[in-house]
Amino acid sequence: MKKIAICPGSFDPITNGHLDIIKRASTLFDKVIVLVVINPVKTAAFTPQERAEMISVATEGMPNVEVDTYNGLLVDYLRQVGATAIVKGLRAVSDFEYEFQMALTNKMLLPYAETVFLTTSAQNMYLSSSIVKQVAQFGGDISEFVPRRLHKRIKERLGPRQGLPAGE
Amino acid sequence: MKKIAICPGSFDPITNGHLDIIKRASTLFDKVIVLVVINPVKTAAFTPQERAEMISVATEGMPNVEVDTYNGLLVDYLRQVGATAIVKGLRAVSDFEYEFQMALTNKMLLPYAETVFLTTSAQNMYLSSSIVKQVAQFGGDISEFVPRRLHKRIKERLGPRQGLPAGE
Amino acid sequence: MKKIAICPGSFDPITNGHLDIIKRASTLFDKVIVLVVINPVKTAAFTPQERAEMISVATEGMPNVEVDTYNGLLVDYLRQVGATAIVKGLRAVSDFEYEFQMALTNKMLLPYAETVFLTTSAQNMYLSSSIVKQVAQFGGDISEFVPRRLHKRIKERLGPRQGLPAGE
Amino acid sequence: MKKIAICPGSFDPITNGHLDIIKRASTLFDKVIVLVVINPVKTAAFTPQERAEMISVATEGMPNVEVDTYNGLLVDYLRQVGATAIVKGLRAVSDFEYEFQMALTNKMLLPYAETVFLTTSAQNMYLSSSIVKQVAQFGGDISEFVPRRLHKRIKERLGPRQGLPAGE
Amino acid sequence: MKKIAICPGSFDPITNGHLDIIKRASTLFDKVIVLVVINPVKTAAFTPQERAEMISVATEGMPNVEVDTYNGLLVDYLRQVGATAIVKGLRAVSDFEYEFQMALTNKMLLPYAETVFLTTSAQNMYLSSSIVKQVAQFGGDISEFVPRRLHKRIKERLGPRQGLPAGE
Amino acid sequence: MKKIAICPGSFDPITNGHLDIIKRASTLFDKVIVLVVINPVKTAAFTPQERAEMISVATEGMPNVEVDTYNGLLVDYLRQVGATAIVKGLRAVSDFEYEFQMALTNKMLLPYAETVFLTTSAQNMYLSSSIVKQVAQFGGDISEFVPRRLHKRIKERLGPRQGLPAGE
Repeated sequence: MKKIAICPGSFDPITNGHLDIIKRASTLFDKVIVLVVINPVKTAAFTPQERAEMISVATEGMPNVEVDTYNGLLVDYLRQVGATAIVKGLRAVSDFEYEFQMALTNKMLLPYAETVFLTTSAQNMYLSSSIVKQVAQFGGDISEFVPRRLHKRIKERLGPRQGLPAGE
Repeated sequence: MKKIAICPGSFDPITNGHLDIIKRASTLFDKVIVLVVINPVKTAAFTPQERAEMISVATEGMPNVEVDTYNGLLVDYLRQVGATAIVKGLRAVSDFEYEFQMALTNKMLLPYAETVFLTTSAQNMYLSSSIVKQVAQFGGDISEFVPRRLHKRIKERLGPRQGLPAGE
Repeated sequence: MKKIAICPGSFDPITNGHLDIIKRASTLFDKVIVLVVINPVKTAAFTPQERAEMISVATEGMPNVEVDTYNGLLVDYLRQVGATAIVKGLRAVSDFEYEFQMALTNKMLLPYAETVFLTTSAQNMYLSSSIVKQVAQFGGDISEFVPRRLHKRIKERLGPRQGLPAGE
Repeated sequence: MKKIAICPGSFDPITNGHLDIIKRASTLFDKVIVLVVINPVKTAAFTPQERAEMISVATEGMPNVEVDTYNGLLVDYLRQVGATAIVKGLRAVSDFEYEFQMALTNKMLLPYAETVFLTTSAQNMYLSSSIVKQVAQFGGDISEFVPRRLHKRIKERLGPRQGLPAGE
Repeated sequence: MKKIAICPGSFDPITNGHLDIIKRASTLFDKVIVLVVINPVKTAAFTPQERAEMISVATEGMPNVEVDTYNGLLVDYLRQVGATAIVKGLRAVSDFEYEFQMALTNKMLLPYAETVFLTTSAQNMYLSSSIVKQVAQFGGDISEFVPRRLHKRIKERLGPRQGLPAGE
Repeated sequence: MKKIAICPGSFDPITNGHLDIIKRASTLFDKVIVLVVINPVKTAAFTPQERAEMISVATEGMPNVEVDTYNGLLVDYLRQVGATAIVKGLRAVSDFEYEFQMALTNKMLLPYAETVFLTTSAQNMYLSSSIVKQVAQFGGDISEFVPRRLHKRIKERLGPRQGLPAGE
């Protein structure tokens, strides 16, 4: 039986840390679905469709990786696509506690599904979408933080407005 | 290609928490090798052979689970048997930090191998071999902590001596 | 002298984890007042009165437990009712740090009052009101998370709207 | 070469914990600039100018301490003033993780600058601006939490309104 | 019914942090038994009898505090003396995790007993018997760390040997 | 006045993580003394003199770095050499808690001295002397973990015995 794993997140935007985890997951499972989870409460910099499209660009060379968006209970999505694993990246202790809580909750809701934690490599360990946004907002260099092919696009959306007419 | 995972530990003795992780790993990978890692420095209650034998008894109903003992560098064992994943159970923050350090070290030594963290169910979360030993030592009830089929054996080895002649 | 303890929280809504802590507190103290603390900044799913009423329903069989709502400094409430202890449930490390800060602050403001930390049983350890809200919002099953007598009421308020006329 | 350190924060308002860190930093470096970082998203109780002014009052006796406000990327400020160190106070594990992430990010953006962590003395360890605001809001005594010279001013701004005419 | 709490530990030797927790416990419970738990594996600086005697000296003014020594399973002691609570001091996150594990274990072994966590005051938060021993060993000043009445005695036992004849 | 900092540790042996911290400290202070603290209880792989000598080799290009060994209370050493700062590397939460305790203890014993925490770069974050020893013991590659000039020497001491005559 093909083993399908879901890699859920907000990916607003995708970072090199996310990409690292997705790559590792793709070597462990037959198919990995990167799932942009829609959170109507949080204000996002990119629409779910933009985020999914950027993930598609970043994962182009990985044949067993697909991208989707979802607005609902994660375990319901797993049931729909026949997935048996949730993959999460662990970076720090605070991640760990929140992810533990979610893992135990999902276990109660769908006992046969397993949450699988992977670690990013050391240099990505403290990278996050919000760090990317904070640095880009003031024109800082984010080229080491996001996938190369998306750098320009992310910088333009998140960065300070440039070349504005003097009249503004 | 068959995916092989190693589940290393000292298992002195195996607890229900270990067994829970092994079961979960066996649903994610094609083959799981439970590896009793020999630590010549630590004093153990059971010999490596006894520990391996007890794991065999506890995992009897799991066809894709094997048991082995090893005295060497974990990544060397992975290379020898063609494994690509190390499976570890995460219980608490202190576990997490130590396991992170080991995962990053192993990643440096064998880049293609992945450390995969799973969580035990909530009721096993704070269970450990050393708790089992502490409780058994004073005759406390360990029947909820260890696999049923091993209960008597573990209790006899770890518990207070009983039925001694009055003369002692 | 009768020993009175306060069990403060937002209880939006009460979970089985809260109920577990309240029960334990009621065996340690002569009287326990469960206090719905009003936080004008946070948006709540239930009004303070609804929350207090639900706690009353959930604690019906506990004669030494009372319920109240309060909008003010916790130590002032303790002074008013003659309480000498604050009871808090500890679940995880992140809880622990925040609660420590509050305990030391309250100690400075009211030196004779003690903050007493209790632990929930393992299966409630990762349960919280916000998990309940997240799961209910998409129609997930929350029956294991909240007191039985309140299940229907909480589900109706928090869950997705059902049976709406086609015209909406 | 003179060693300049930046002590960044929101200081809304300055507490005795902040003051303790600033004092310690001033003994380690030739010059310390306390930098009020402007965060347009967070609602503040005091304007950046008010916060800077209060820091000036609190640090009056420290000749090598200056105060400034800034709206931009921290590393850009360091470059502008020729500073080589960022000073942060560490209080608890949750602080530590966030500050680590920021330190590594700043290291990537400005490799020659060092983040230096100091600890407050034990009695200030769990003190924060938000604790000060929570306590003051209900008229609690904050005299132990903030610099003596600023006590009245902070209390008046943050505390409940007093002495209002009956007609209100 | 009188409420009895046990305050277990190795107390090798008692510190001001221990004494702080014992005092707080004595205001919450009708009777507190400070229990010197004998650990045959750990090398101790003082015999269990010496430790118990020092606790008796330090708690002289507390009429509802008793001292005992015990070599066995903690829950068995609780059953023997009719105690329903175990009191532990919490200082730091690492304490917290270990104590949680013990609390859940004891809950499984004796369901009606509650583990109650208290916090020491801020200035004692990072104090421990092993710190006392490390400082005393090299002649450092431990007068702020241990009860006044025991200072000389502890210093003499733990400190560097003094006043030796020139010939040694 | 010249600012002198002490960088204490067991350095058994020095790793690239230690070296990173020493380098950073040497840019912040006028003089840095790397202090091999002698712990008579712990069994070490290298003698204090060997460890000091290896540090001297590794820090050859740093003119303001000196090396010393010491068997006593750290604050006494600071007094003797006129140092005002202790420099420690922070890697993980467990480090942090222990180091905090030591920092507060040293602050009590020598109020004018400051403990200064620095972070290693991300790739050294999970590196430690004990990891080096564990990996070397089984012939694993430690070339990324220790200073280049010391690699051969450390490997020979810590690694498995090689080239033994067949007769052994």
